[in-house]
Amino acid sequence: MEEKIPGFVRHTSDISEKEMDGGARIRWLITHRDGAPTFSMRHINIPVGKSTPFHSHDYEHEIFLIEGEIEATIGDLKCNAIKGDFLFIPPNAFHGMKAVRDAKLICVVPVKVAREMLGS
Amino acid sequence: MEEKIPGFVRHTSDISEKEMDGGARIRWLITHRDGAPTFSMRHINIPVGKSTPFHSHDYEHEIFLIEGEIEATIGDLKCNAIKGDFLFIPPNAFHGMKAVRDAKLICVVPVKVAREMLGS
Repeated sequence: MEEKIPGFVRHTSDISEKEMDGGARIRWLITHRDGAPTFSMRHINIPVGKSTPFHSHDYEHEIFLIEGEIEATIGDLKCNAIKGDFLFIPPNAFHGMKAVRDAKLICVVPVKVAREMLGS
Repeated sequence: MEEKIPGFVRHTSDISEKEMDGGARIRWLITHRDGAPTFSMRHINIPVGKSTPFHSHDYEHEIFLIEGEIEATIGDLKCNAIKGDFLFIPPNAFHGMKAVRDAKLICVVPVKVAREMLGS
């Protein structure tokens, strides 16, 4: 018999934060470890002046800004984003986000990324 | 030569809302139409007393509550969720969300769902 994956409700503060290159802090909210089949939801906290890593990779990001303000780089595009803005970073686009004001955002990635970064 | 998919920054209010069964209103923020390969980000607005559809399907939801309060049903689990809470709804779990206070949330689904619901 197939094992049933349990659903849940948790609070962001239940998950421990890890520092990223650039000084932003990440929480992996939902991953393959929870039984997520397709994608993984992360919460990223960027204190003013700090940033996420500037890099590119073969997978996409979908980002929603919950709070604050960032300066976003996506390929040749450079612009500010505020609460209620959302960002699409396609595969292989060079990108990064620097906080202009303390910022919080949701950033979703394919589940393979969680598997590669966190292990099984 | 492979065509390059452009990244972007947009505001939630740039996207038109559609009413769902139960009275919640949905915005499809990022879909296959934007070149998203794996998943699709939606913004859902639930006025107090209204709800998302109560149903089940073969794909998962990952949800982050931006604002307000909901009563969430996920299989046998029934509990309230507030700003900063996140929800994992596994494939095939019966689920729905009713607003206790006006609520806004991000809800991510596999990209095939956007394709089925919105067309190509």
